[in-house]
Amino acid sequence: MRDSLFQLSQSDQTSLQSQVRKMIVSAILGGQLPRNEPVPSSRRLAKSLGVSRNTVVLAYQGLVDDGYLLPRERSGYFVNEQMIGRGPDLQNQEPVEISPTAVSWQSRLKKHPARQVNVGKPKDWQSYEYPFIYGQVDHQLFPMAEWRECARQALGRKWLDAWTSDAREDDDPSLVEQVRTRLLPRRGIMASEQEVLITLGAQNALYIIASLLVSQSSVVGIEDPGYPDMRNIFRLRTQHLRLLPLDTGGLQIDSRLDDCDIVFTTPSHQSPTTVTMPMERRVQLLEMAARHDFLVVEDDYEFETNYLSDPTPALKSLDRDDRVLYVGSLSKTLFPGLRLGYLVGPRAIVKEARALRRLMVRHPPSNNQRNAALFLALGHHDALINRLHRTYRDRWTAMAGALEKWLPHYGKAPSFGGTSFWVQGPDALDADILAAQALEQGIIIEPGRIYYSDAIAAPRNYLRLGFSSIETGKIEPGIKALSKLIHRN
Amino acid sequence: MRDSLFQLSQSDQTSLQSQVRKMIVSAILGGQLPRNEPVPSSRRLAKSLGVSRNTVVLAYQGLVDDGYLLPRERSGYFVNEQMIGRGPDLQNQEPVEISPTAVSWQSRLKKHPARQVNVGKPKDWQSYEYPFIYGQVDHQLFPMAEWRECARQALGRKWLDAWTSDAREDDDPSLVEQVRTRLLPRRGIMASEQEVLITLGAQNALYIIASLLVSQSSVVGIEDPGYPDMRNIFRLRTQHLRLLPLDTGGLQIDSRLDDCDIVFTTPSHQSPTTVTMPMERRVQLLEMAARHDFLVVEDDYEFETNYLSDPTPALKSLDRDDRVLYVGSLSKTLFPGLRLGYLVGPRAIVKEARALRRLMVRHPPSNNQRNAALFLALGHHDALINRLHRTYRDRWTAMAGALEKWLPHYGKAPSFGGTSFWVQGPDALDADILAAQALEQGIIIEPGRIYYSDAIAAPRNYLRLGFSSIETGKIEPGIKALSKLIHRN
Repeated sequence: MRDSLFQLSQSDQTSLQSQVRKMIVSAILGGQLPRNEPVPSSRRLAKSLGVSRNTVVLAYQGLVDDGYLLPRERSGYFVNEQMIGRGPDLQNQEPVEISPTAVSWQSRLKKHPARQVNVGKPKDWQSYEYPFIYGQVDHQLFPMAEWRECARQALGRKWLDAWTSDAREDDDPSLVEQVRTRLLPRRGIMASEQEVLITLGAQNALYIIASLLVSQSSVVGIEDPGYPDMRNIFRLRTQHLRLLPLDTGGLQIDSRLDDCDIVFTTPSHQSPTTVTMPMERRVQLLEMAARHDFLVVEDDYEFETNYLSDPTPALKSLDRDDRVLYVGSLSKTLFPGLRLGYLVGPRAIVKEARALRRLMVRHPPSNNQRNAALFLALGHHDALINRLHRTYRDRWTAMAGALEKWLPHYGKAPSFGGTSFWVQGPDALDADILAAQALEQGIIIEPGRIYYSDAIAAPRNYLRLGFSSIETGKIEPGIKALSKLIHRN
Repeated sequence: MRDSLFQLSQSDQTSLQSQVRKMIVSAILGGQLPRNEPVPSSRRLAKSLGVSRNTVVLAYQGLVDDGYLLPRERSGYFVNEQMIGRGPDLQNQEPVEISPTAVSWQSRLKKHPARQVNVGKPKDWQSYEYPFIYGQVDHQLFPMAEWRECARQALGRKWLDAWTSDAREDDDPSLVEQVRTRLLPRRGIMASEQEVLITLGAQNALYIIASLLVSQSSVVGIEDPGYPDMRNIFRLRTQHLRLLPLDTGGLQIDSRLDDCDIVFTTPSHQSPTTVTMPMERRVQLLEMAARHDFLVVEDDYEFETNYLSDPTPALKSLDRDDRVLYVGSLSKTLFPGLRLGYLVGPRAIVKEARALRRLMVRHPPSNNQRNAALFLALGHHDALINRLHRTYRDRWTAMAGALEKWLPHYGKAPSFGGTSFWVQGPDALDADILAAQALEQGIIIEPGRIYYSDAIAAPRNYLRLGFSSIETGKIEPGIKALSKLIHRN
C-alpha cells in the first residue's frame, strides 16, 4: 500500500479528521487501494501525515460506520469491495470528437442574456485595503454565533419534515408569519398570508413580476440611472422602456409616465443615487398611477436604513387601489448568499406568482426558510438592524466628513442613510479609468456609468462609494488615498 | 409587570431558552413592557413558567448581549428604551378600504400559471399508515448527523465569504468540482467547469432551458404520459406540443419526432412509468436527432437507481454532437427541500443559462452549495446511495411480491429499479375514486391520470405506487389493505 497516496493539503480548510476521511474515500472510490491488504494502521498513517493518532482512529471509525472499511480482527481495516471503483475513472473516458453533425447553438437561442452588460466586482474584495464596495457582508458585523445556533436548531430531527420535504408551491408558514408580523409592519404594510410570497432574493420577485406582467408590447417605466439587473430583466421581454429621469426627490412625476403599463421605482433609497422620494411625491405618483391606470413596482431593497432621520413608510402602505407590488429583501440585513426576499401584492397576483415560482424553482430551500424564521423570531434580526444602524451612522458621518475634506469639489446626492454615496466628479473625470487605477492602489470604487441605460452616452464622472463593508477607521485614509490618486492625474 | 404576558406554548418546538427569549423580545418590540420597572427576576419568571432558573438566566444574558435588556446594579434587568415599540403595532393599522380605482389584475396578466392542473399530495403524509407516496424523504434513511456535521463545518468563520457573499452569477467551485468528478462520471459523462451550471433543483434547469430555447413557434416533443410540471413549463411558451407515446422501451422513435425542434425525455426511468430505454433505442434517438436536427433534453431525475441491474449510462454520454442537454438532481438522494440540481451542456448554452439564472435568482444559496459540496467530498453521498440501493432493492422485491399476491390481475410496467411502480388496473377501475377511498383508510396512492396530457380523455385505470418513504415491513400489509378495498367495491 502506497502511503504516498496520502497527503494533507495546505489549502484544505476542513478539519484534519475530515481531510483524512476525504483522502481515503477518494482512493476507495477511485479504485486506488488494493483489495488484499489492510489500509495503513492508524499509527503509521498518523505518523506519515503528522497528525495525532486519534484523528486517524476517528476518521477510520466513521468509514467503518459508513461501510467504506471493514474491520478484520487482528488484521486491521480492509476496503469494502462493494465500494471499490464506484467513483469516476477519469482515465478511461474517451476524448470527445468534433462531429460534422454538431449543433450550432447560437442560432437556437431565443434570448441572449449573456450579451447584456452588467455590474462586475472583484471577487477577492476582502483582500483590498479600502473596499468601498456595495452589497457585501461585513464579517465584523455578522452575528455568526446566533446564525449558527439557529441553523443547529432548524436542522433538528423534530423539524426534519420542515426542512427536507418537497413543499411544492408552499412557503414555510413560520417565515411568512415573521415577514408579515415583524418586517412588513415596520414599513407600514399590513398583509395577509395570501398576499405574501417568499422569493429567492428580491431579484427573483422582480423576475417573476416581469414574467407575469410584461409582454412584447408592454411599456415599462424605469429610473435612469437605475438598477442594471432590473433593466436587463425587462429588456429580455420588451423593447419599450421609458427612461425616467431623477432629481433630488427621486423619480420625476411628469407626462413621461402617462402611457406606461408598469413603473419600476426605488422610493426609499433610489438605486444608485440613494435619494429618498418625499411623501408628497409618493402621493402624486399614486394619483398619477390611478389616473393613467399603470401599475407600480416598489423595490424596497435596502429595507429600512434611514438611520439619519425617521424612516419613510413604504409606498405600498399608501396604496388603496392594490396597484403597488412591493418587493423586499433579507440580503442587506442577513446576507446576500442566502437568497431570501419577498413579494407582497394582491391575492390574485400572488397566487399566479406562486404557480409560476413552482415551475421556476418550486420554492426557496426549506432549510434556509426555517433558519431565517427562527433568527427573526428570536429577535436576532432586530438586534442586528440596531447594530447595523449604529455602525452605518458612524460610517456615514466618516464618509461625509472625509469627502468634504479631501474631495470638496465633488458633489454628493442628498442622502438619508443607506450604505453608499453617489458622488459626482468634475466633468473631465473618467470614473472607469479612475476605478482601474484605484484598484491597483487597493481601493475598490464603482464607476457610475453602468447604472445608466445608455452606457455609451452616459456621463462618465459619477462614482458609487459603498461603506457597508469597510471599517469606519479605514474610511478617511481610503478617501484620502483616492483624492491623492485623483490629484496626481 | 404582568407575568401573565409570559406563557410557554405547548406546540413551540424550540428549546425552552429560545422560547423564553422569543417571549421577551416580542413583548419589548411590541412595547408591552413598562419602562420604569425591571423585568421579572429570573427566579420569579422561572417559577411562573415552570422551567429551571438557569434557562431564564441564560436567556436574559443573551438579551443583554444583544442590547434588548440593560442590567442595573442591584435592581435587575431593564428594557433598553431604544428597542421599545420598534416592532409592529398591529392595532394601529387602518383597515384597508376598497377603492373605486382598484386594479383589475386578471386583465393585466400575460400568463395564468395558477390555472394549470398539477400534482397535489397530502401534506401530512407522514401521519398515514401506508404512504405509497413518491418523491419525499424517508426519515429513517436520511443521514441526519452527517448532514448536520457538514452544515456545522460549512458555516465556519473561515468560510464566511463562501456562504454569505453575493456570488452574482457564480457557483460554488467546490460543488461544481464534486458534480464533475464524482456524480457525472457515474453516468458516463465528462464535463468541464464551463459545461456545468448548478440550479435550484432539476426543475429550475428545465425552466431555464425552456426560457432560452422555446418560443411561440417551437415544436416541443414530450412523453405522454409524462412529468406534469415539465408539460406546464412548455405550455406557458408554446401551443405546439407533440405528444409522444410510450412502450416498454420508453419513448417510441418514429416519424412523430421529425418536425420537433426539441424533445424532452426521461430515458433512465421514464416518468411516471419507470421503464428504461434500451441502448439500441438511445442510439436510434440520437441518429434521428442528427438527421432531423432537433435538440434533446435528458432529465435524469432519479440519477442512478438501477439497483436491479447494471446502470445504463446517460444518453448524454453517447452524444458526440453536443445535441443533448443533461439535467440532474440531488433531490432523490439528498432531499428535495434543498433545491439543488444541475444542468450539463455545451459551453455556449451554459453561458447563456448562467446569465439568465443571474437575472432569475442570481445563484442557488451559497450556504447550501458549500454544505452539499462537503457532504459529497466526505463520501457521505456515496455511502447514502449504497444504503438507499440496498433498501430500495428490498422494498422493490416486497412490492413486486405483494402486487403479485394481492393484485395478480393488475399489470405492471417493466421496472429496472427506481422508487415507484406504475400499475394498470382493470378497464373499469377509476383510480381517482380509489385514491380518495384509500386515503380514508390511511393508504396514500397516486392516480395516474394527471400524468397524461389530456387528463379528461386519459385512461382512469392507472396508479403510481411509490416506495421511497414506506417501511419495507409496511408494504405487504399496505397492498393487502388496498386489495381488500378494491375487492369491496
